[in-house]
Formats: sequence, C-alpha cells, structure tokens
Amino acid sequence: QSSVTIYGLLDVNVAHERAGSLKRSGMDVSELNGSRLGFRGSEDLGNGLKAIYTLETAVRLDIGGMDGAGFQRQTFLGLEGSWGRITAGRQYSPAFVALDPFEATGGADRTAGLLHRKTGSVARGYQVRFDNMIKYRSPEMAGFSVDAGYWTGAENASDDSDVRRQGRGYGLTGMYKNGPFAASVTTQSYITNATGGRASTHGIAGAYDFGVAKLYALYTQDREHGSQGSGKARSYAVGAEIPVSKVGTVAVSYGSRNESGEADTEDASGVSLYYMHNLSKRTTLYTAYSQLNNRGDANYGFNLTPDAGDRISVVMAGIRHRF
Amino acid sequence: QSSVTIYGLLDVNVAHERAGSLKRSGMDVSELNGSRLGFRGSEDLGNGLKAIYTLETAVRLDIGGMDGAGFQRQTFLGLEGSWGRITAGRQYSPAFVALDPFEATGGADRTAGLLHRKTGSVARGYQVRFDNMIKYRSPEMAGFSVDAGYWTGAENASDDSDVRRQGRGYGLTGMYKNGPFAASVTTQSYITNATGGRASTHGIAGAYDFGVAKLYALYTQDREHGSQGSGKARSYAVGAEIPVSKVGTVAVSYGSRNESGEADTEDASGVSLYYMHNLSKRTTLYTAYSQLNNRGDANYGFNLTPDAGDRISVVMAGIRHRF
Amino acid sequence: QSSVTIYGLLDVNVAHERAGSLKRSGMDVSELNGSRLGFRGSEDLGNGLKAIYTLETAVRLDIGGMDGAGFQRQTFLGLEGSWGRITAGRQYSPAFVALDPFEATGGADRTAGLLHRKTGSVARGYQVRFDNMIKYRSPEMAGFSVDAGYWTGAENASDDSDVRRQGRGYGLTGMYKNGPFAASVTTQSYITNATGGRASTHGIAGAYDFGVAKLYALYTQDREHGSQGSGKARSYAVGAEIPVSKVGTVAVSYGSRNESGEADTEDASGVSLYYMHNLSKRTTLYTAYSQLNNRGDANYGFNLTPDAGDRISVVMAGIRHRF
Repeated sequence: QSSVTIYGLLDVNVAHERAGSLKRSGMDVSELNGSRLGFRGSEDLGNGLKAIYTLETAVRLDIGGMDGAGFQRQTFLGLEGSWGRITAGRQYSPAFVALDPFEATGGADRTAGLLHRKTGSVARGYQVRFDNMIKYRSPEMAGFSVDAGYWTGAENASDDSDVRRQGRGYGLTGMYKNGPFAASVTTQSYITNATGGRASTHGIAGAYDFGVAKLYALYTQDREHGSQGSGKARSYAVGAEIPVSKVGTVAVSYGSRNESGEADTEDASGVSLYYMHNLSKRTTLYTAYSQLNNRGDANYGFNLTPDAGDRISVVMAGIRHRF
Repeated sequence: QSSVTIYGLLDVNVAHERAGSLKRSGMDVSELNGSRLGFRGSEDLGNGLKAIYTLETAVRLDIGGMDGAGFQRQTFLGLEGSWGRITAGRQYSPAFVALDPFEATGGADRTAGLLHRKTGSVARGYQVRFDNMIKYRSPEMAGFSVDAGYWTGAENASDDSDVRRQGRGYGLTGMYKNGPFAASVTTQSYITNATGGRASTHGIAGAYDFGVAKLYALYTQDREHGSQGSGKARSYAVGAEIPVSKVGTVAVSYGSRNESGEADTEDASGVSLYYMHNLSKRTTLYTAYSQLNNRGDANYGFNLTPDAGDRISVVMAGIRHRF
Repeated sequence: QSSVTIYGLLDVNVAHERAGSLKRSGMDVSELNGSRLGFRGSEDLGNGLKAIYTLETAVRLDIGGMDGAGFQRQTFLGLEGSWGRITAGRQYSPAFVALDPFEATGGADRTAGLLHRKTGSVARGYQVRFDNMIKYRSPEMAGFSVDAGYWTGAENASDDSDVRRQGRGYGLTGMYKNGPFAASVTTQSYITNATGGRASTHGIAGAYDFGVAKLYALYTQDREHGSQGSGKARSYAVGAEIPVSKVGTVAVSYGSRNESGEADTEDASGVSLYYMHNLSKRTTLYTAYSQLNNRGDANYGFNLTPDAGDRISVVMAGIRHRF
C-alpha cells in the first residue's frame, strides 16, 4: 500500500581556489545543486484531493555526514487539489522560488550571480528555507501562479511580544510564464532578533529564451532595520545559458552587490563561466571558473575567507548525478 | 533478494497554548503519533522461523532534523517462530506496550490521559523505550500474551556493582483480549543512578467496546527509592472513543496524578477532547483541546513551562499521514 | 526511472568481558561486520560506461543513532568502465582493501588478528576510511588488480604548507587471485598533524584454500615520524577458516604487535576463536572467545580500558543479518 519514492542528487568536484595570498586545492561538493537523499510520496484521497509529503536530507559526499541534524533540506506534509496546495513544515522560501531559477547557472554554489544571497553588513530577507512554514502554492492560471508562505518564529514563552515574534516572517511570490518568456516578483520579510530587528528582500526577475541563448536577469533589494542601525543592499545578476552542442551548455553570469546605510559597506561584483556536459539526462560533467572582486570592507569568500577587499577566484571540475 | 519495506508517519499541527500568563502560537508536530521514517524486513529461514528487523528514526517536520542522533525510535534485530519472538536492541518498553493502547486518544502527545507518563518529584519506571534491551513476546494463546524485556545498564567498568548496574532494568506485561474486552497488567523497574536508586511502575488497564462507544481505563503506581528519599505517585486515566460518523471519531480523556512521599508533591489533573476525521485509512485531519490543572509544586507543561500551580491549555488543528 | 537499491547489515550480540580486575556484561554490536543501512545505484551511460554511487550510514542497534553525523561509512560518486572505476568521496582506504580480507574472521571487531589496526605509541597509516578521497580501482587482468587512492587534507587557508597538507595522503594496493591462492601488497601514508608528522603502513598478506581449511597470513609495518619522535610497529596475524559442517565454520586467529622506537612500547599478542552458524545465506548465528595479552605499557582493550599490561578477554554470542 505504501508508495514511497526514493530520490537523490550527488555532486562532487575538485577545485583550486585563491583568495588574496591564500590558496587551497581540495574536494568540494554540491556545486550545481545540493547533494541530497529524499523520500516523497502522495496518496489519492478522491475528488482530485491528494496528501503529499517530502522528507529530504543533505548528504556530504566528501566527508560523510548530513550537514546538520539530518532532514534539514525539506520536511513537509500537506494537501493538494485543483485549488492549489497547502503544506506545513520546513520549506523553500517564496523568495528562493522566485529568484533561484533566474540565475543563469541555475543557482550554482559559487556563481557570482548569487551575490544577492550573501549577507554583508546588511542582513537579507532572502533565506533559502525557513522552519515552521505554512505555504500555499496556487495552480497556474493563464500563465500566472503564486507562492505564499508564513512562518512562526521561536515563539518562546515571554510577555515581551518582540521576543515571541523572533524569526517570524512571510514571503509572497508571483510568477508568470508564456512561451519563451518567464518572470517573477517577490517580497519577503522576517524578524531577525528579539529586539524587533527586521530584514526584508524585494526582488524581480525575468528570462527570455531566444533559442541560440536564454538570457536571465534579476534584481533584489535587501533592507534591514535593527538594533545596529539600518542598511540597504542592491544586487543584480545578468547572465546567459548557451547551448553549444547536443549535450553541452555554457552558462555565463555576472553579479553585483552594493550596500549602503549606517553600517560599513561590503560591496562586490564578479563573473562566472560554467560548462555543463550531459552524459545522460541524469549525469552531467562540469567545469567552471568563478571570480569575485571584493570592495571596501567586503570579504565574501568561497571556502577561504579573504582579507577585506581581496579578489577571490576558483576553478573546478566535477560530476553531478540524479537518481 | 532484498525485501526492505519503507514506512513512515507524519503529523503536523498549528496550536495556541496558554500557561498562566504565558501564551504561544506556533507549529507543532507528532501529536497523534510520533513522526517517523522506518525500514523493516524479514527473511523466511524455513520451519516457520523468520529473521526480523526494524530501523526507525524520528523526523522533525517543523524544523527538520531527527530528534537526537537518528534511528532512536526503534532499532532491533531478532528471530520469530511459533514460540514467539526474541529481539535485541533499542525497543519499546513492556509498560508502554501495556498502557499506551488503553488511553482513549491512543496516547496523543498532549492528552491529559498521559499524566501517568510525567516525571514530577517522583521518577517513574515507565520509560517509553530502553537501550540494550533483550525482549521476548509470546504468541497469543486463548487471548493471553506476554511481553517481557530485560536491559543492561551503562555497564561501565567499575569494581562498584551499583555503578555497573546503573540503567539496568526489566519489564513484564501480560495482555488479554476477548471480543470487545481487552486488558493488561504490567510491572517495570530500573536502576536510576550510580548510588542504587530505583524507579518502578506497576500498572493495570482495560477497555470495553460497547459499539456506540469504547471505554478505557488505566491505573499506574510509580515508586522511587533513591538518594533523595522515597516517593510514590498514583495516576489514572479514564476515557471514551465515540464514533460520530462513518469517518469521524471523538475521543475524550480525563487523567489525574497524585504524588506522595518525602519530596514535594507535584499533583495535577486534566481533561482532553480530540476529534479525528479520516480522509482515508492513511490520512486523518484532527482538532483538539487539552487542559492540565497543576496543583502544589507541579508545573507540568506542553511547549511552555508554567509557574508552579498554573493551569495550562492548548487548542490545535492538524493532519496525520501514514505511508 | 530511479534505480536505488536499499541494503544493510545488522549485527548484535551479548558479551561478557574481563580486563584485569574489571568486568562487564552487556549488549554489543557490529562484531562480524559493521551494522549499516545503505543506498546505492548505477546508471548505464552507454559504451560500457556507468555512473555509480553509494551512500552508507552506520546504525547503532543497541542504543539507536548512527555513530557520528550519519552517512560516514561510505559516500561516493563515480564512473565505471572497461578501464576500471574512479570514485570521489569518503571511501575505504587501499590498505583496508588489501588487508581486511586476509584476517581469518574477516576482520571481526574483537579478533586478535586485528592488532595491526591498533594505535599504541606509534600511529598507523592504516585508517579504514579517509575523507576527500579520489580512488581508482583497476579491472582484474590475469588475476591482478590495483586499488589506488589519494586524499586531500584539511586544506585550510594558510601560508604554511605543512598546515595546508595536514591529513593529506595516499594508498596503493596490488592484489592477485589464482584459484585457491590470493595475495596482496599495500603501502599507505598520510600527514598526521600540522607540523609535518607522517604515519605510514606497509603490508603484505596471503591466503590459500586447502578445502579442509583456508589459511591466512598478513604482516604490516607502521612507521611514524612526528613532533614526538619516531617509532615503528611490526604486526602480524595468522589464522584459519575451517568448515565444520554444511552450515558451520570455525575461524581461529592469532595476532601480535611489537612497537619499537623513541616512544614507550605498547606490545601485545592474542588469540581468537569464532564459530559462525549460517541459518541462511543472509542470517548467521555466532559465538566467539577472544583474548589479548598486553605487555609493557600497552593497555589495548575492547569496551573496557585495562591497566597497562593487563590481560583482557571476551566471550560472546550473537546474530548477523544482511538485507
């Protein structure tokens, strides 16, 4: 009677990284996508209604382990019908759903196109996942769909409502698809600490598939109001995905992040070049070069932590397998 | 050649809780049953003999994770034949097997009918699971069956036999079933610390299915003899499970705990009302109200920890799915 | 489209152990083999090429849990063809591949034949697994095959190359099989600390199956050069596996370890007797006696830690099940 589907994705590479005068050669994981092992299923309840669930753990291919307490990628249970679906648990945030597909590499771990996902002096509302989320996803109607989430905070016992609300937030994403064109807009916000600090991200993204190349662009604005003052960060990424053979694709991505406000500014820009070679639908070889140019007090890094203002770069070759 | 069965149960709800002047709204999990992912199987060895195993981990639906080190719900391997079954590993205690089915909600997480499972000033012998257990379960004969377990303690190297025995214990349960009637009796005891302290639980329980309602009752007595003096706790629960439609069931449960002895007494009573609505055999919607009235030094709580003597209450709505 | 195979092995026993004046009776696990739950699969990529992966976690049968962070037995992804296979991740070391099959019990947890795997005053290059390993395994040609691994170290950011190289190492194993005869030779070495210390193991092993008995022998030499001086350890094991019935096998193993060098010497020898009784191809009952005689400053133990020079012994009975 059980109908569990086991699935997964494994991604490992060897990389050489430079960060100012530091350097490192080593084995890295989860570049194109996060390595995972998952269990999911559904039950038909009649009248088009279904129960659905997903339990998904990260797996560290290089050193073993699960990146935390296990089953922290996705754990949710819910119902799905013609009206959409509602799910409860630890889930992807609406901002992630809106923005991640519009980075040209598909959100590779070290692409410069993910500078909007960094936290510098300014915290961001764009967390990939949140705990304790109730989420609604609409069906697609005339190309439009909605992804909306609300999550509770720590909800500790306290008479102070700021303390109780810590971690609480919401996100709302609208998406549109029409032939070669796709776009999204999102707003997401949560309470960052027990004194009422708040971080939010607003974003807009789009893509157009010209056939010879698919062009991508996204823009986000983070705002933080907190006990340490206020700040703002503007980030954008532009890129292209270019089929170069029946099985090969080049993705190029440029990203930039500019912070302003009362805190020190941690600005950076960078460019990345990825080549993906499909051995099959499920198995891909890849190689890539990525570079970030830190400015001011910024010390964004990959595995190494550079000095403020130092340039970092990485070159890698790896394999991804889905099952 | 392999014959692994994957199974699981997921349970998530939203709840509002009050504890004296404290309050909390949030997402909670594992109300009707503990959320889990399991792997089990058996091998036919001929002559009616089978090898059997179960590996079962808790899964936290709200925040991800596995509630501890993983695979801590059940891990055992054993043999089963016409003579019964013998298993070794981390397993449910005989007292749990005896008492849990005789609480009207089936042992829901926040039912008042589980006050006998609380630890106040008096420790209890009624732990749900023990490590290092050798367990024997008899076949059912004329309605009677037996569940017996012995578990070793930490068994640290020491010349002091009290130190060696810490954690060691045993449980013995007799069960009887005959048509609408079922009953059980249990005794369970283990050594709580390295100075020879001991906690034990004796219990008796029964149920009768009248068709319009199934009535439940259970009574337990905990005794603790330890370095901090001796104490006793008497708990009972009565309840009823009432089918109200083809797919709907109401369960009502009343529980009470009274402690006595040299320690401060932590007494309480409470009442709970659950409604379970089956969307299918595997998927259930539920809503419930539960309330505990602490007395004396008692501060039994759900997610919130109340002040001593404060009343706590919770209202919730959720979904449970088996696979 | 997915082709995941779930597999596992569970092994639990009850044991009584003595170590000088200390004694302990308890439940132990993973005697004949490590208890595990695994997920593996492959994808045919055409032209004889395959993608292969394995994710394998330890499972603690006695107390639940996964022995560490989970999935720390094996996690790798790779490609396999007529030219052999290359894999990346956390994997068995070449020395383990060379030596483990040539101990008469098959590398049981408490056999005296594994004294070469102990660390006394002298660290060894023979670790069972290493993180961050790139491994090549050749196909078998005229009975010969090769298993070669290289692994990166911590690779922390530093201008000091010794710090960067900590943990880095390699192993190389040659194996030969011809009818009843099999043999292996191995060399393995890694950098043990941030000041350039190095431990290495060289080993040779062989077996011959006479039908009435299969004889085993192995010899290893550990060398350590480090900040605390240099040392050497010579270990050997001889043993026999004797079929005593259609389903029963006796394995006897003798092992010895002798350390020399600037550090205190921790020498020992011991003997073990195992009886394995197959209930089926997948399920085995076993009983065993094992004894180690520590000499000098050695305090090698099983679960108990003896005083230096004390003799330890253990007697056990258990069950192993594969699925």
